Amino acid sequence: MTLKMTAGELQAFMEREFPQVAEDFAIDRLAPMEIDLRLKVAERHLRPGGTVSGPSMFSLADCAIYLATLAMIGPQGLAVTTNGSIDFMRKPASGQDIVAKCRLLKLGRVLAVGDVLMFSAGMEQPVARASMTYSIPPR
Amino acid sequence: MTLKMTAGELQAFMEREFPQVAEDFAIDRLAPMEIDLRLKVAERHLRPGGTVSGPSMFSLADCAIYLATLAMIGPQGLAVTTNGSIDFMRKPASGQDIVAKCRLLKLGRVLAVGDVLMFSAGMEQPVARASMTYSIPPR
Amino acid sequence: MTLKMTAGELQAFMEREFPQVAEDFAIDRLAPMEIDLRLKVAERHLRPGGTVSGPSMFSLADCAIYLATLAMIGPQGLAVTTNGSIDFMRKPASGQDIVAKCRLLKLGRVLAVGDVLMFSAGMEQPVARASMTYSIPPR
Amino acid sequence: MTLKMTAGELQAFMEREFPQVAEDFAIDRLAPMEIDLRLKVAERHLRPGGTVSGPSMFSLADCAIYLATLAMIGPQGLAVTTNGSIDFMRKPASGQDIVAKCRLLKLGRVLAVGDVLMFSAGMEQPVARASMTYSIPPR
Repeated sequence: MTLKMTAGELQAFMEREFPQVAEDFAIDRLAPMEIDLRLKVAERHLRPGGTVSGPSMFSLADCAIYLATLAMIGPQGLAVTTNGSIDFMRKPASGQDIVAKCRLLKLGRVLAVGDVLMFSAGMEQPVARASMTYSIPPR
Repeated sequence: MTLKMTAGELQAFMEREFPQVAEDFAIDRLAPMEIDLRLKVAERHLRPGGTVSGPSMFSLADCAIYLATLAMIGPQGLAVTTNGSIDFMRKPASGQDIVAKCRLLKLGRVLAVGDVLMFSAGMEQPVARASMTYSIPPR
Repeated sequence: MTLKMTAGELQAFMEREFPQVAEDFAIDRLAPMEIDLRLKVAERHLRPGGTVSGPSMFSLADCAIYLATLAMIGPQGLAVTTNGSIDFMRKPASGQDIVAKCRLLKLGRVLAVGDVLMFSAGMEQPVARASMTYSIPPR
Repeated sequence: MTLKMTAGELQAFMEREFPQVAEDFAIDRLAPMEIDLRLKVAERHLRPGGTVSGPSMFSLADCAIYLATLAMIGPQGLAVTTNGSIDFMRKPASGQDIVAKCRLLKLGRVLAVGDVLMFSAGMEQPVARASMTYSIPPR
């Protein structure tokens, strides 16, 4: 399986289609069926005490699996999340970016499934784990 | 089981502790082990096409179960989400508020579990379903 | 929406297609988009201490949502579970049957989603909660 | 972190405490925070067509995370599953054993979280993915 989009093309797609959130994320690494996506933590992602909020981590996981899927199928059609599960395991380090290490486990004709481990920059243990299913529209 | 906080006290608690998100939500109804929480949809919750984003619905479900728990145990200590699962089932109606109908299924000594159905104002069928587990700190 | 199969037709379908598990289950009630399915607890479902095992409750939830779906679409094709989440909340009562109260939340062209509360006979509080997604093959 | 139990001790514990299911499973590999557990597929695990049933895979994942936890904390007390999510991604190969490759992502004072990829012997792509949370009783 080979990539149909480069990291730059994914970033441009995000800026064009999802301007509300595109500036939240940076692609650190892209490979077939894999992506490392970074949440550039800002004030709006924080909870009191300076830790990153749960919904911000959900958003990071969702976006990582979405981009990993698009990178494989190209920018065609509208994939939508049908299901997600997330475990919050540790308190994120205060004020640090969060990196999602994502792999696609399945890329089928109608469903894609990916999972993600999320890490605070500078922590060895994951702060959260998530998996999501995307429904891929007929091409 | 009886409520330890009123809707007004919950709203005030949210404004004090979570000023970043307090204005996103309104408590429509509160009863023992139950809450109806409304996401006051604004530009920042939307995806292209005007539908509410998945992470915004995750945030609504998370907040509903958190507030239902606090209403029963009081504003003491820091409950944290340990786990959540969510199913996105229908496209939310464009530009409408989303109402979460939440019930606590378990309120134990260390864990609380709740589930939620979410509806677009004016739609009869749920747009999403979620369940979350909260870890309750020792009192 | 109307039922395409009766409780008796569902039971007969199960005995023909899933003889390994058909005797585990009894349909207590069937309505459009709803089913009450009972796990007839036997030695093989138990853990030490006499409580029903987690996988037995997963199996009950899975079967309930499957049968609720078949009742609506008819015995055509092979629906398969693509995803499930389950919360175990209380210890089941020793040696009692478990009843799953299931509702279909979505019955789409390609995906069905249902959720379930499970109760020990004689307990008012649910022992477990589950939700599952089924992929429906093209008809 | 070091192991408190060997593979042989885990197997003996399972045979003593869970005689109903102990013969279903074999420990292929054990390391700190990791286990490879094999479901020795028999008639009772199958669905029509010879594929392994979903509940059997749920049971395998549940058992793998349980044993990985016990190996780290010792055979003391009664850990119970509080939550699980599972994605079924591919049809298992007919009549082949299923191997669960499990890692503990968190081993806290009160909660352990693990995830699992499951493979049919002779297939490179995972047939299923699961994650589970265990509640660990006070020691």
